[in-house]
Amino acid sequence: MKVTVEVVLMISLGSNTFAPITPVWVVGTYDHDGKPNVMTAAWAGICCSKPPCVYVSLRKATYTYGNLMERRAFTISFPSEAYVKEADYFGLASGRDSDKFSTTGLTAMRSDLVDAPYVKEFPVVLECKVIKIVEIGLHTEFIGEILDVKADPTVLDKNKMPDLERVKPLVCSLENMSYRKVGEHIGKAFSIGKDVGK
Amino acid sequence: MKVTVEVVLMISLGSNTFAPITPVWVVGTYDHDGKPNVMTAAWAGICCSKPPCVYVSLRKATYTYGNLMERRAFTISFPSEAYVKEADYFGLASGRDSDKFSTTGLTAMRSDLVDAPYVKEFPVVLECKVIKIVEIGLHTEFIGEILDVKADPTVLDKNKMPDLERVKPLVCSLENMSYRKVGEHIGKAFSIGKDVGK
Repeated sequence: MKVTVEVVLMISLGSNTFAPITPVWVVGTYDHDGKPNVMTAAWAGICCSKPPCVYVSLRKATYTYGNLMERRAFTISFPSEAYVKEADYFGLASGRDSDKFSTTGLTAMRSDLVDAPYVKEFPVVLECKVIKIVEIGLHTEFIGEILDVKADPTVLDKNKMPDLERVKPLVCSLENMSYRKVGEHIGKAFSIGKDVGK
Repeated sequence: MKVTVEVVLMISLGSNTFAPITPVWVVGTYDHDGKPNVMTAAWAGICCSKPPCVYVSLRKATYTYGNLMERRAFTISFPSEAYVKEADYFGLASGRDSDKFSTTGLTAMRSDLVDAPYVKEFPVVLECKVIKIVEIGLHTEFIGEILDVKADPTVLDKNKMPDLERVKPLVCSLENMSYRKVGEHIGKAFSIGKDVGK
């Protein structure tokens, strides 16, 4: 008698960070002298619905870290595809030795709710005040309450919600060093799984 | 003299959560009786590099919340496009009144490092132990140290890294209720922005 056993071994890649896709979110802060700064963060996301909160994790070495410790406020500006170069630059340069707004020609708008600037040319923005600072290790997590979501009216759909086809957000594969568009629709959320097992 | 002033007003959408794209990550836990459970979470991401950490934010009402408080361990399994229905179902059903593995026919594999199961059919997995629990509001954030990344060898590239074209991850637009593929490459990360302002 022959017995065939299928063995598919998962390979260990070690203790490391991995995410198939990360955000490309731009964190806006003022420095000690009031100079607006922006940096691109991949380690960011929504973390609570009531109150609505977003986090960004930063190394202490970043200029934004110092700004956040002092100002306790930030914005998140979501770049659209058209600004892929600027978004990459915002992650490469440091506000310590550059004025990233003047270099790119983009416009720093002062939030009317929090002590932080956002990028006027980006279609959707979150205005946040820091409510918790969590020390994890090399990175510190800043949790911000979202006081308002602001959007360019031209990207809203008929329900006044940001329309993905108009926002055209960027995503990133860090392992593949690749910025990507968001691709085709493959299923309706909270719906396509309803019939599973029935 | 005629003066034309361009005014583009950002519209306030109110204090709310918004992210153009969220992850579609599947959190694996064991319950009190050792039954494996999975739930799909959109509010999850990497939050530290040393130690490598990932977070997931959950409401106390979820079955996974209780499992995590008891077991202090979880996995993240990243579904590929082919499993969009199962991933949606994992977010719709509760482990309190269903066995999501038997319903879908997917396989619960016991992690050899942490007290949690992962989905064998999904191409990449993180094995995590809870190192911090952060109370934010309606959601509680569980921060897990990633003890290992495991991958199906068929999705690795020549550098033994997960290849985006083979992992085929899902992303979601919650506002548009739409699961999406990851789309085309539009720039090399940490590179395309180097010449900005030069």
